[in-house]
Amino acid sequence: MKILVIGASGTLGQAVVRELSSRHDIITASRSSGDVNVDIKDIDSIRAMYAKVGKVDAIACTAGKVHFGPLSDMTADLMQVGIKDKLMGQVNLVLEGTASLNDGGSFSLISGILAYDPIRLGSSASLVNGALESFVKAAAIELPRGIRINAISPNVFVESMEGYGPFFRGFKPVPVADAALAYSKSIEGGQTGQVYKI
Amino acid sequence: MKILVIGASGTLGQAVVRELSSRHDIITASRSSGDVNVDIKDIDSIRAMYAKVGKVDAIACTAGKVHFGPLSDMTADLMQVGIKDKLMGQVNLVLEGTASLNDGGSFSLISGILAYDPIRLGSSASLVNGALESFVKAAAIELPRGIRINAISPNVFVESMEGYGPFFRGFKPVPVADAALAYSKSIEGGQTGQVYKI
Repeated sequence: MKILVIGASGTLGQAVVRELSSRHDIITASRSSGDVNVDIKDIDSIRAMYAKVGKVDAIACTAGKVHFGPLSDMTADLMQVGIKDKLMGQVNLVLEGTASLNDGGSFSLISGILAYDPIRLGSSASLVNGALESFVKAAAIELPRGIRINAISPNVFVESMEGYGPFFRGFKPVPVADAALAYSKSIEGGQTGQVYKI
Repeated sequence: MKILVIGASGTLGQAVVRELSSRHDIITASRSSGDVNVDIKDIDSIRAMYAKVGKVDAIACTAGKVHFGPLSDMTADLMQVGIKDKLMGQVNLVLEGTASLNDGGSFSLISGILAYDPIRLGSSASLVNGALESFVKAAAIELPRGIRINAISPNVFVESMEGYGPFFRGFKPVPVADAALAYSKSIEGGQTGQVYKI
């Protein structure tokens, strides 16, 4: 398969590339490195990426930014950070990218455990992840030509505990390779409309 | 209790007022009728409503608009209709309204079955409802002074089947009074961070 991995330079993106590259042709996309550059919060950047890449068999996103902060300091503008980037960035990857997928192709989006298991400072991340998980369930029943879509919803990563550990006390971190395996299941399996809780 | 019902002129809003008005003082808010006017997609309108209403014991929202249409016709702009109105309208009711709630007060927001049980044409509604349900879980652990928050997530209403029936084939509609009961549980009970599936 020809697989486009967006956010390929990140911790998760690198793990997904490691998992898939021995079996497939990988096109890497990132904001400032990789085979093609893309900023997912910019719809024109998404369109330019798809125009450059051409037809592929799978589109996997491992990128997405949200604002973390206390609910008492949260504002409509701070909520927009995650809505524009992790949420609508990935929704636009689907809306704009369906035509770039071959029949039977797939989208794999990144959600996260805060959709259902919240932490302090995480209200925006929860909102964005919950939106993505429900969008995936809905889009799955309307995508044409056998195209599939799943969300990967991981716990905090072992590899990210140095930075994120204080915010995720009591959470059992998972190796990023486990989340990469879920991308493999989404891309190489036959399921659709699923949320893989890792 | 003094209870602010937003969207009070709608099918659900009227049912919530019927359920609560024999026991409580109700302040009704709607776009063009009621004790106070509000357009929840306009944050200044929300602020003006709270300034006029003063302190209350419960804020219940029964209003929220989303765009329905095929995924193939969906665009970032059409997605924004629901994000600005039903999603961020209600999130802003919380962010801007916490200071207007007395200690131990509550927010009750409207979500819907499409968060987890999708229909064709409903991808935006699913996204918005999923976002709201996860936001409620997250906000519940950060709200101060014993303030609670729950989401009411109803099936299609018996009373709305004439208009919505064709889109919800096979769904078992519920009386709007059942959803109004869930608002009573949210407001008069002690639970928080819950999604009441009706």
